[in-house]
Amino acid sequence: MSRYKLIIEYDGGGLVGWQRQANGLSVQEALENAVARFCGQNTAVHGAGRTDAGVHALAQAAHLDLIRPVTPEVLRSAVNHYLRPAAISVLSVEIAPDSFDARLSATGRVYLYRMLNRRAPPALERGRVWQVVRPLNIEAMRDGARYLIGHHDFSTFRDSLCQAKSPIKTLEALEVRRVGEEVHIEARARSFLHHQVRNMAGTLKLVGLGRWRPEDVARALAARDRRAGGPTAPAEGLYLVEIRYPARIEE
Amino acid sequence: MSRYKLIIEYDGGGLVGWQRQANGLSVQEALENAVARFCGQNTAVHGAGRTDAGVHALAQAAHLDLIRPVTPEVLRSAVNHYLRPAAISVLSVEIAPDSFDARLSATGRVYLYRMLNRRAPPALERGRVWQVVRPLNIEAMRDGARYLIGHHDFSTFRDSLCQAKSPIKTLEALEVRRVGEEVHIEARARSFLHHQVRNMAGTLKLVGLGRWRPEDVARALAARDRRAGGPTAPAEGLYLVEIRYPARIEE
Repeated sequence: MSRYKLIIEYDGGGLVGWQRQANGLSVQEALENAVARFCGQNTAVHGAGRTDAGVHALAQAAHLDLIRPVTPEVLRSAVNHYLRPAAISVLSVEIAPDSFDARLSATGRVYLYRMLNRRAPPALERGRVWQVVRPLNIEAMRDGARYLIGHHDFSTFRDSLCQAKSPIKTLEALEVRRVGEEVHIEARARSFLHHQVRNMAGTLKLVGLGRWRPEDVARALAARDRRAGGPTAPAEGLYLVEIRYPARIEE
Repeated sequence: MSRYKLIIEYDGGGLVGWQRQANGLSVQEALENAVARFCGQNTAVHGAGRTDAGVHALAQAAHLDLIRPVTPEVLRSAVNHYLRPAAISVLSVEIAPDSFDARLSATGRVYLYRMLNRRAPPALERGRVWQVVRPLNIEAMRDGARYLIGHHDFSTFRDSLCQAKSPIKTLEALEVRRVGEEVHIEARARSFLHHQVRNMAGTLKLVGLGRWRPEDVARALAARDRRAGGPTAPAEGLYLVEIRYPARIEE
């Protein structure tokens, strides 16, 4: 038996998210079906993060075991062949130690939230950004974001369906920058609560529009109550950018 | 009567190109229908360039006349409203002098060709790039591109359906650069022959793969024969980036 680590890109539109669901095609199901069609083996594909329906990934990580080993390149190209026509692509495959677990071994997760800040609706980036018509004040958003960085109880930004044992997380970075007509929010942490990035993005949008002052973010955080936070930003603007592992796992 | 200049973004996938066709929705038809639904007037929308089916635009230019003038912002937002759900968006509208003609007044056109140079198929950029699996040699492509810059008979890169009176054009620039996993070719000229950019891109790809030497591009150009050129690169990688006008038109 061999364990493999996969890096996967997908367009979340039209998918029900990472995890298997009865109501549509998930990334996990598409990958497991592709592996089964390739080698006849029914194997579980374990992802590093459970992205929601509509959320995109530039580099999701996952692991799986094969009873009859093949080279990583054969696995990568065969799985991509059988994934068609789903908008899911395996970027790379490598052999991993048996101790490697895509979710449990991860030491960091990076997410990007993209807002298109202009009056005209997106044509080329439709389904890939959240359109915000009125001008966003980047400096105010940065000031608001600073209150969220660090070790906090993030109950205000936690979805009621969140299964994490504790609402306490360490947010390593929350960067706001303008990229052409877009505003990008990049969030880095060991792990996140359910909807945490989208809830932080929806809150920072209120700050950007001037409806909240930056210091209102601190007050919302301190309330430890979801009702004190801003709305949940839509899934289509969110990208899982990277899963980080200790260097030794990569060997 | 008032003349308006429009800047338009569109996703060419699912559209039959700029010009009205019997076999599907064109950008021109979508815009003319949207104007008619907004103000009841049947007016022609004249584009600066006739992009082919599948070709995208970041900033196509066009003009139209309205019998009963409205403010540019009202026209922009009303047309965008009635364009839904087509993947076409009017980015800006301004009042133009009666002498302005989107096609005839243009002094320059900028196109971008995007190749995704990696083994894994595109998931997020599907339909937006041409995937080239084997590694492209950028330096060789640059060397080949240099032979095409300047005033030449471009018959080798001209589609048989091209309606231009002369195959002689001045190619102002043809830049090749690597952007992450992509190779971008940017072409600038006053005007182009039909399929010229896609035929140049398909030829430079052969150079990038090492199947042609850079100097073979010079030989192909000198042959003044379409059969001497490389294949036509697919429409989905091509973007109309900008239409340039003299400064006075913008006033």
